[in-house]
Amino acid sequence: MAEDPILGELSGDKVLLGGAATGELYEQGSFGRPVPGGLHLSLVEAAYLLDRGRISVRVGGEDLDFQSFFEAATALEAGFEFRYVVYKDLRERGYYVQPGVTDFRVYPRGGKPGKTPAEFYVHVVSEREPVPLKELVEPAKIARQMRKRLMLAVVDEESDITFYEAKDRDLKGEMEVEAPGGTATLLEDRVMLWDPEASEALHEGGFYGKPVGGRLQLSLVESAYLLEKGVLRIVDRSGAPLTPEEFSRRSRLVEEEFDMKRLVYRDLRDRRLVVKTGFKFGSHFRVYKRVEGSKKVPHSEYLVHSVPEGHIFHLPVVSRAVRLAHSVRKQMVFARQEGDEVKYLEIRRLKP
Amino acid sequence: MAEDPILGELSGDKVLLGGAATGELYEQGSFGRPVPGGLHLSLVEAAYLLDRGRISVRVGGEDLDFQSFFEAATALEAGFEFRYVVYKDLRERGYYVQPGVTDFRVYPRGGKPGKTPAEFYVHVVSEREPVPLKELVEPAKIARQMRKRLMLAVVDEESDITFYEAKDRDLKGEMEVEAPGGTATLLEDRVMLWDPEASEALHEGGFYGKPVGGRLQLSLVESAYLLEKGVLRIVDRSGAPLTPEEFSRRSRLVEEEFDMKRLVYRDLRDRRLVVKTGFKFGSHFRVYKRVEGSKKVPHSEYLVHSVPEGHIFHLPVVSRAVRLAHSVRKQMVFARQEGDEVKYLEIRRLKP
Repeated sequence: MAEDPILGELSGDKVLLGGAATGELYEQGSFGRPVPGGLHLSLVEAAYLLDRGRISVRVGGEDLDFQSFFEAATALEAGFEFRYVVYKDLRERGYYVQPGVTDFRVYPRGGKPGKTPAEFYVHVVSEREPVPLKELVEPAKIARQMRKRLMLAVVDEESDITFYEAKDRDLKGEMEVEAPGGTATLLEDRVMLWDPEASEALHEGGFYGKPVGGRLQLSLVESAYLLEKGVLRIVDRSGAPLTPEEFSRRSRLVEEEFDMKRLVYRDLRDRRLVVKTGFKFGSHFRVYKRVEGSKKVPHSEYLVHSVPEGHIFHLPVVSRAVRLAHSVRKQMVFARQEGDEVKYLEIRRLKP
Repeated sequence: MAEDPILGELSGDKVLLGGAATGELYEQGSFGRPVPGGLHLSLVEAAYLLDRGRISVRVGGEDLDFQSFFEAATALEAGFEFRYVVYKDLRERGYYVQPGVTDFRVYPRGGKPGKTPAEFYVHVVSEREPVPLKELVEPAKIARQMRKRLMLAVVDEESDITFYEAKDRDLKGEMEVEAPGGTATLLEDRVMLWDPEASEALHEGGFYGKPVGGRLQLSLVESAYLLEKGVLRIVDRSGAPLTPEEFSRRSRLVEEEFDMKRLVYRDLRDRRLVVKTGFKFGSHFRVYKRVEGSKKVPHSEYLVHSVPEGHIFHLPVVSRAVRLAHSVRKQMVFARQEGDEVKYLEIRRLKP
């Protein structure tokens, strides 16, 4: 900067600049909000410009150096440190950033306020903050209504930032299943279909279960679904047939999350997707759009994990889930019940 | 099998065979335990041999087909289904497997009972079973004392098996740190060292903190360590110096797990390792054996996650952590406090 810093005055949670600043800072750089006869900067904008020597900040007739201003700002504004780190990072990557309904509005690369609409609403959060599911679902909805995308900027304890996008997904598959009947037995905590023909047909036709020496071993959610659809008859070890209600009751004893998983499993299968356990990936399900028989099993597209409506995300856990999903080229999707519907929220890593 | 099946009698949780079986099944195949005048098979061994037509099983004068025997066995023995799946899998991979102190003893490839010592103690567990930390720590100790390795065979809801090894680790680094002093400020929830020289020396010399425009941003655990070692002086925003106790007290308000993390951080640094946040990997720390300045940061070797002594593992979470660690070529290590020591348990995937 050749020119002298523009003089600003700290007042409350703003820094007030004279009208001269409007041209240089607002029109050229999209900093601040113009007011009659001057320009108002948020504390984050002011810290950024102060650090660059573009402005000076005075309070009670005294100049504040960066350290004193920064210390004052963190005391004035909860979360200032996080917002500053994210604001600085995005600005230094060449994005135009403005305060917005969420923490910031970010403009697309090459775009700027007045010229292009903003692309992202940015929500800044510390890795330590638990994030309730609905604090992602609601902003994601609003963002979509406003034709924006929701960006989650997670700041870790070393001020590294990980960017995520959260968005509603409508999953669809292309699987046509014609499943033959059969009678299976509920054993200790899984179901076995004994008949070899039925076993093969069910596995080849719908990619259900796991063949174990001519027989088919079905998971509880698979069995509940096939029982409900009237495809399978399920008996206990004494040979007594089980109703779907009784089967569910027994499954709940084995698997705490059975009801939640069953609901999501059914919804995904009804969407003509193929659903298998995601255990090896630490999620409830891995999901295929279509599987043509067990000879050529394709790559599964999604990892789906069911969470209750009141779920609270711990960001290190989300970070691990999303990173793992990407490392195996899958999309990480969280499923929840909303009323009597199942809704899907994808969380993916962004690399701005 | 050309020969007729050997006749066996189901009695309690054993299948009893006559002396003739000893030669064919025990001496050739290492099945069962010889008793005067005969051979005793466990239910798992019997199911395996029955499925192969090597034996027939009778109870009360009646022959049992595989289905009836299997149904009976799951009723007689909790966890039979899981053990059968694992036993069958290992046998079909060509390993000799025998009942042991844990579920099974497995012999090294090419080895067999009487010829070579067993290599693994196998602990079979359902993905749904919560596993207390000490149920891994104790068997791992015993296995090591017996010069064996501890294998965890986790059976998922579709009877797929994931094998893990759990073992104690003694981590060591090669980092020489000479750290200059300085005064830093505790802000809202992180610490800032303002002096550029001190900042650079600390970052380059010990890979501490994150440089933010000439200043150094330190995490709470880093700061607590440097404060404790007398390297840093830490003041609050009013300039009042903080004792290590006061700093810890304030840190606890920000970070629930602060004490546990601080303890492990200190132990790792004292072991001359370089410790940074593992947030991007969903663990507490990523750990380097040595870092020669920030210009050429090497690959970090370990992901370390601290858990309380009474921790209970949920296997899908372990599966995710270990899989993620391997996908970035790191070792997954869980740290716990034992008395006034910190101990490390590595959990790694095995591919038998």
